[in-house]
Amino acid sequence: MTQVSGVTINCDIGEGFAIYRPWDDAGIMPHIHIANVACGFHASDPVVMRETVLLAAKNNVPVGAHPSFPDKQGFGRRDMIMDREELAACIRYQVGALKAFLDAEGLKLNHIKPHGALFGAATRREEVANAIADVALQYGVPVIGLPGSVGDQVYKARSVPFIAEYYADNDYEAATNLIVTRGHGVRDPNEVANRCVRMLKEGKAPTIKGVDFDVQAQTICVHSDTPNVVEMTRALRKAITPWAA
Amino acid sequence: MTQVSGVTINCDIGEGFAIYRPWDDAGIMPHIHIANVACGFHASDPVVMRETVLLAAKNNVPVGAHPSFPDKQGFGRRDMIMDREELAACIRYQVGALKAFLDAEGLKLNHIKPHGALFGAATRREEVANAIADVALQYGVPVIGLPGSVGDQVYKARSVPFIAEYYADNDYEAATNLIVTRGHGVRDPNEVANRCVRMLKEGKAPTIKGVDFDVQAQTICVHSDTPNVVEMTRALRKAITPWAA
Amino acid sequence: MTQVSGVTINCDIGEGFAIYRPWDDAGIMPHIHIANVACGFHASDPVVMRETVLLAAKNNVPVGAHPSFPDKQGFGRRDMIMDREELAACIRYQVGALKAFLDAEGLKLNHIKPHGALFGAATRREEVANAIADVALQYGVPVIGLPGSVGDQVYKARSVPFIAEYYADNDYEAATNLIVTRGHGVRDPNEVANRCVRMLKEGKAPTIKGVDFDVQAQTICVHSDTPNVVEMTRALRKAITPWAA
Amino acid sequence: MTQVSGVTINCDIGEGFAIYRPWDDAGIMPHIHIANVACGFHASDPVVMRETVLLAAKNNVPVGAHPSFPDKQGFGRRDMIMDREELAACIRYQVGALKAFLDAEGLKLNHIKPHGALFGAATRREEVANAIADVALQYGVPVIGLPGSVGDQVYKARSVPFIAEYYADNDYEAATNLIVTRGHGVRDPNEVANRCVRMLKEGKAPTIKGVDFDVQAQTICVHSDTPNVVEMTRALRKAITPWAA
Repeated sequence: MTQVSGVTINCDIGEGFAIYRPWDDAGIMPHIHIANVACGFHASDPVVMRETVLLAAKNNVPVGAHPSFPDKQGFGRRDMIMDREELAACIRYQVGALKAFLDAEGLKLNHIKPHGALFGAATRREEVANAIADVALQYGVPVIGLPGSVGDQVYKARSVPFIAEYYADNDYEAATNLIVTRGHGVRDPNEVANRCVRMLKEGKAPTIKGVDFDVQAQTICVHSDTPNVVEMTRALRKAITPWAA
Repeated sequence: MTQVSGVTINCDIGEGFAIYRPWDDAGIMPHIHIANVACGFHASDPVVMRETVLLAAKNNVPVGAHPSFPDKQGFGRRDMIMDREELAACIRYQVGALKAFLDAEGLKLNHIKPHGALFGAATRREEVANAIADVALQYGVPVIGLPGSVGDQVYKARSVPFIAEYYADNDYEAATNLIVTRGHGVRDPNEVANRCVRMLKEGKAPTIKGVDFDVQAQTICVHSDTPNVVEMTRALRKAITPWAA
Repeated sequence: MTQVSGVTINCDIGEGFAIYRPWDDAGIMPHIHIANVACGFHASDPVVMRETVLLAAKNNVPVGAHPSFPDKQGFGRRDMIMDREELAACIRYQVGALKAFLDAEGLKLNHIKPHGALFGAATRREEVANAIADVALQYGVPVIGLPGSVGDQVYKARSVPFIAEYYADNDYEAATNLIVTRGHGVRDPNEVANRCVRMLKEGKAPTIKGVDFDVQAQTICVHSDTPNVVEMTRALRKAITPWAA
Repeated sequence: MTQVSGVTINCDIGEGFAIYRPWDDAGIMPHIHIANVACGFHASDPVVMRETVLLAAKNNVPVGAHPSFPDKQGFGRRDMIMDREELAACIRYQVGALKAFLDAEGLKLNHIKPHGALFGAATRREEVANAIADVALQYGVPVIGLPGSVGDQVYKARSVPFIAEYYADNDYEAATNLIVTRGHGVRDPNEVANRCVRMLKEGKAPTIKGVDFDVQAQTICVHSDTPNVVEMTRALRKAITPWAA
């Protein structure tokens, strides 16, 4: 297999809301390469977005948009059926809103990574991937997604730069079937680090049934709501140093 | 008094939501000079914003942002107490979201005009005007507001370009005390046209008590929810032609 | 076939929001037998709910709850994946909220009829029908639904009184496959009246492909957003008098 | 002064939302006498409301409604200007929604206590207190409020049973001027217990400037977002045992 390099750790972050600041964004930010910042449709609000962009700026972490279906009560983890045009409008709205906070700090939009059920839907439904691609093309930024999925095919066909992702703290049913859960549990940092290193070295990762699948990822995702995310990410970042950006 | 020229008619527009399209945006758009487009906090949503920007583009009408307090149920016509920083974040979010739809069509943001209770609050409270100014300065666009109000003073002190406005279809308690209502009633097109022409010629307009006040406005506002807005605006535009942009 | 009697016309009503009052609720209310009143999740808000309950009271029209998926921007016409427990909680919340306005006027809750995508989902997915049944059993009221659908089976199995419904202003793909659309178009009052009379007389109705299916309905639905709903309902009510409640 | 008895500790609780469960509701519930349960307008949602009512039921803690201005992003701690009728409708909606979860468990509504900015507004503005009273009278339940405030006068004039409250973890500017903050800080349990005991014994409590004011309260409020609320409440409950319900 090809030698992998420039691998990043990306993190869904800025997912507080109102007076809720449940996760340690300040603790996790120094340990990640790129940040996927919530845009107010599954989590966050203008105040949280501002805080999060300032925190990323302080840590020199490039910021991507993390748009969602409009579903704050379900944290964007409920699938919704929307047609391409209205979904593209929803994504455009969120990305534009985030960009206002980036512009205010003189920062560029780095990428788009769909959140939760929207991420899952983009792995399966063309109209969803096309809606995401519509907005990525407007801003000339890459999309993070699941390699081998419907989204991967759509992005490539439309010449949207694609960043293949592997999940450190989610389980897989199959190569293109990530299990999106409402919350995340504690993960053993060594298990995560070893699994990701093997993925980078051998291009293989296990499903929850213990069957290996092939995967070549340029970015590894961690979630700020994984209870021990700081410790896990610290271990992961150290372990992947030879391949890292 | 100074000779007035370049006067525009501005209109609060794109104020539908979901499946509600209560007003005749397509009918009014050809008759206005500049559009104040709702950004989703008092009305509108991503689908409506896209429709409205496309409609403005088709009619070559420059688009400004029409941000609001977060109050969709109250149509942004309830006053809210927010501090400057969180209010600025709310306004920045809305303007950025609108800009995404403008960028998609290759259009520029033309101005900012606060909506409803936010407009009213900006005439009275410094922190509100400052929050608006913070965002206007980021985008380098002028703010539309009430001449002689607290906002006028704040904008001038901070070198935010200011466009003085007169209301065709709202009543005045006093020069800097506009009566912001939940809905708008039918207006006599001739009365409106004559009153605005007098305002442009003599720099005078009446309060609801019939007392004249001094006013020099560069833009005249009409509302898309005024029932006979198309007829009224047509008459108004014809009448103000000698002073118009 | 059995002689049908006690047939009602039911109407989705009270579907304004904020300052939007797009439909002629006062015009339609006198012509219907029972009202399905929106509860704030796809349309309506506390002010609209109060207005609607008062209007129903004035016309002696029994009121049922018309709960939805939480999707105001999509008018509840987007399918969403929610588990039974959280969906039951959402429905319970809406029904309770409506009941507060009924209690205030000394009125009883008459029935529950799910709205839009929730109605559609209840015809296909057991967990959705079970969530609706959970709340109907709490209040001891019947559910309106599509005869022969998954919901029909679930309600009967759990001894929830079931009112079989036929749609006057929606099309059918098949007997248990109603086409739920974002908006409704004009309908020919005579066509509607004749089709419904035939349904009552012969127990037959056509799909959009012109194939007849068997249907025995105790209630006929009209929508307040059908443009000529008042005229259509007047004709329908007159035509079905021999079978009506 | 009169001997005080039957004093309760009341707590604002069930103030999570979506996947946010920031406070230890299960830890605090056993230590309080009555619960003020959020109704979805400043915090909570149908899932959280169900959880909270079940938790209260398990601990035999009577449940009151804790309605708010519609302001989830501001956690109901921003003042809003609403007229009496629309505010009463908003409160009625929230109380009805909560009642659905109480009915499901065979529980009664115990009281109404307005939240945050609504609580503050009820101490100053008649139309706000009247809106609260309108709903309390419908359900025949008492209102918790600040003794000596405008609300106290309105409730007494309208024969709404009134429960005078003292705040354990908020500061006072003056007897009827509670400082409502966006969040709460750590409190010294002994200082709180001693201050409350003195209030019960002597009918006196200090403002933040150290000036005493007269206060006779039948209930003492603690907030679930006070960081050490469990420890503080435990100490408080022990200290006030001689006066407690």
